[in-house]
Amino acid sequence: METSSSRAVIAADIGGTHVRFALVTEKGEILLQEKRSRIRGSTPERMIYDWIEIAKGLESRAQGFGLKVSALGFGIAGKIDVEEGRVIFSPNIPELNGFDVVAFLRSHLAYPVAIDNDANVFGRGELWVGKGSKYPDWLGITLGTGVGGCVILDGRVWTGSRGIGFAGEIGHTTVYPNGRLCMCGKRGCLEAYASEGGLLRHIANCGSGKEYGLSALSAKRLYDMALSGNPEACRLFEEFGTALGIAIANAFTLLGIRCAIVGGGVSNAWGVFYEPLLRATVNNCSMLNAEDIVIEKSELEDSAALYGAARLALDII
Amino acid sequence: METSSSRAVIAADIGGTHVRFALVTEKGEILLQEKRSRIRGSTPERMIYDWIEIAKGLESRAQGFGLKVSALGFGIAGKIDVEEGRVIFSPNIPELNGFDVVAFLRSHLAYPVAIDNDANVFGRGELWVGKGSKYPDWLGITLGTGVGGCVILDGRVWTGSRGIGFAGEIGHTTVYPNGRLCMCGKRGCLEAYASEGGLLRHIANCGSGKEYGLSALSAKRLYDMALSGNPEACRLFEEFGTALGIAIANAFTLLGIRCAIVGGGVSNAWGVFYEPLLRATVNNCSMLNAEDIVIEKSELEDSAALYGAARLALDII
Repeated sequence: METSSSRAVIAADIGGTHVRFALVTEKGEILLQEKRSRIRGSTPERMIYDWIEIAKGLESRAQGFGLKVSALGFGIAGKIDVEEGRVIFSPNIPELNGFDVVAFLRSHLAYPVAIDNDANVFGRGELWVGKGSKYPDWLGITLGTGVGGCVILDGRVWTGSRGIGFAGEIGHTTVYPNGRLCMCGKRGCLEAYASEGGLLRHIANCGSGKEYGLSALSAKRLYDMALSGNPEACRLFEEFGTALGIAIANAFTLLGIRCAIVGGGVSNAWGVFYEPLLRATVNNCSMLNAEDIVIEKSELEDSAALYGAARLALDII
Repeated sequence: METSSSRAVIAADIGGTHVRFALVTEKGEILLQEKRSRIRGSTPERMIYDWIEIAKGLESRAQGFGLKVSALGFGIAGKIDVEEGRVIFSPNIPELNGFDVVAFLRSHLAYPVAIDNDANVFGRGELWVGKGSKYPDWLGITLGTGVGGCVILDGRVWTGSRGIGFAGEIGHTTVYPNGRLCMCGKRGCLEAYASEGGLLRHIANCGSGKEYGLSALSAKRLYDMALSGNPEACRLFEEFGTALGIAIANAFTLLGIRCAIVGGGVSNAWGVFYEPLLRATVNNCSMLNAEDIVIEKSELEDSAALYGAARLALDII
């Protein structure tokens, strides 16, 4: 087999339940993918040895394409010190808190390694091969278990003040002061209204889990219920879209931008939350004319993270 | 008289009621100032001829200092197309809406001219000679009749997407969905809670103007009342600080920054709103530790605008 590129990188999407690795060419072709369950309750070293094993496997298989791996890039949820290559705080992989993950990987691999927050990696993927390449300035939002976000200014991911470890965390902006309790411990965050975790916790807290069949409840199930006209599910997605619209309007007003790109698994419920989302954005953004507002759904599905991690790696070669 | 600089610029602060001009050296010395009432209900040309007259007067007087004026910079409230030098929308000088004010000034003056939004000009002043010079990334807020704001990233004023005409408009971010009516027409804006205009309109709308003596009411008067323990005035500043804290927390969370600098005339009520402001910022910012949050009052008083306009002018020489 042959490809049109000569350089390739390894891209990794490190999630709370699974890790996904890919071999990606500099032209943005995903040649190989590998997905594994994440090793849990272990030391960071033991967990990362597993990643190294996957990376080395992809290195070997890259030779079959006549390719040499030049770098590794990966995304992970939480507060990340990008410059130092350290996880400051990970909500779903607590074993990594405070761990110098880039230095550890670097000491076992023959090429440079770069890390970034998972939503920033989404942004890099969108910028490179997605809708984000159309706009110089935009807000990225990932809707999943939680709500992630990134801020793209002048065609670059803004990674926040040096050492601070985050930027674009729209999920933890307050939409309703003293509103629903969020996983982060404070009240009224966007994430409490517009994520799978927020929806399911809200339903559980209201004691109405049983009527939904909580044991099997998911955002997908709620979406199907809303599609079939269940009024309570419709109301939840109305609140979901409204909260998201208010948060987007606030970001547009603060940043002086007018475009947003929405991805993540829960963005597939687009059909039941887009209308209230757009209405709330327009109603809460007095600085923009309605016709100037652009809110689009990502088309990269779950590959945005791999493209973004690959771009991150290519940028350090 | 002699100065240590050889180059000088004219700085102007164009407000709804007054215009203020100054001759400023490249070292940041304000040598001369002139303040006039703004000409109203006239054509933009007639109004701007008045500014040209002031500028030419300062040019002549600059010669007495052995200085030659090299540029003019000015700030004005509203949506400004900085690149094109046009006022898109001015809330308090409607005569200028859509007017190519830089081109007109340029055609009557012998040096380059630059314009920016008044809160961005505040930011430039703070960056140059104020507390803003201490931090690479910060949020600027001006509390006056309304609430202005600016976003400083990597030591530069972020002016928003090209052609959009605004950035940093924290005053029109929604703090309380469906809350108090704002001058901009929407509900729940920070400005409706944390500006002189917002406070006075709220009091008038509550029908409680009489008990305050509304005819002579001002933020200064309310501040004095709060200082002397008037419970209603104290409550208003508690709400003022809380709303401001929520908006600042949201900006910190979205931008990944941790510093804010607050100026404008109403910031002089600092003593009665800082405590609730800090409390609300801490309570609404789960991404930052309380001890990392920095919120400072500007020390430049009303000179920030002149320093900032001078810096704007110096940057185009």
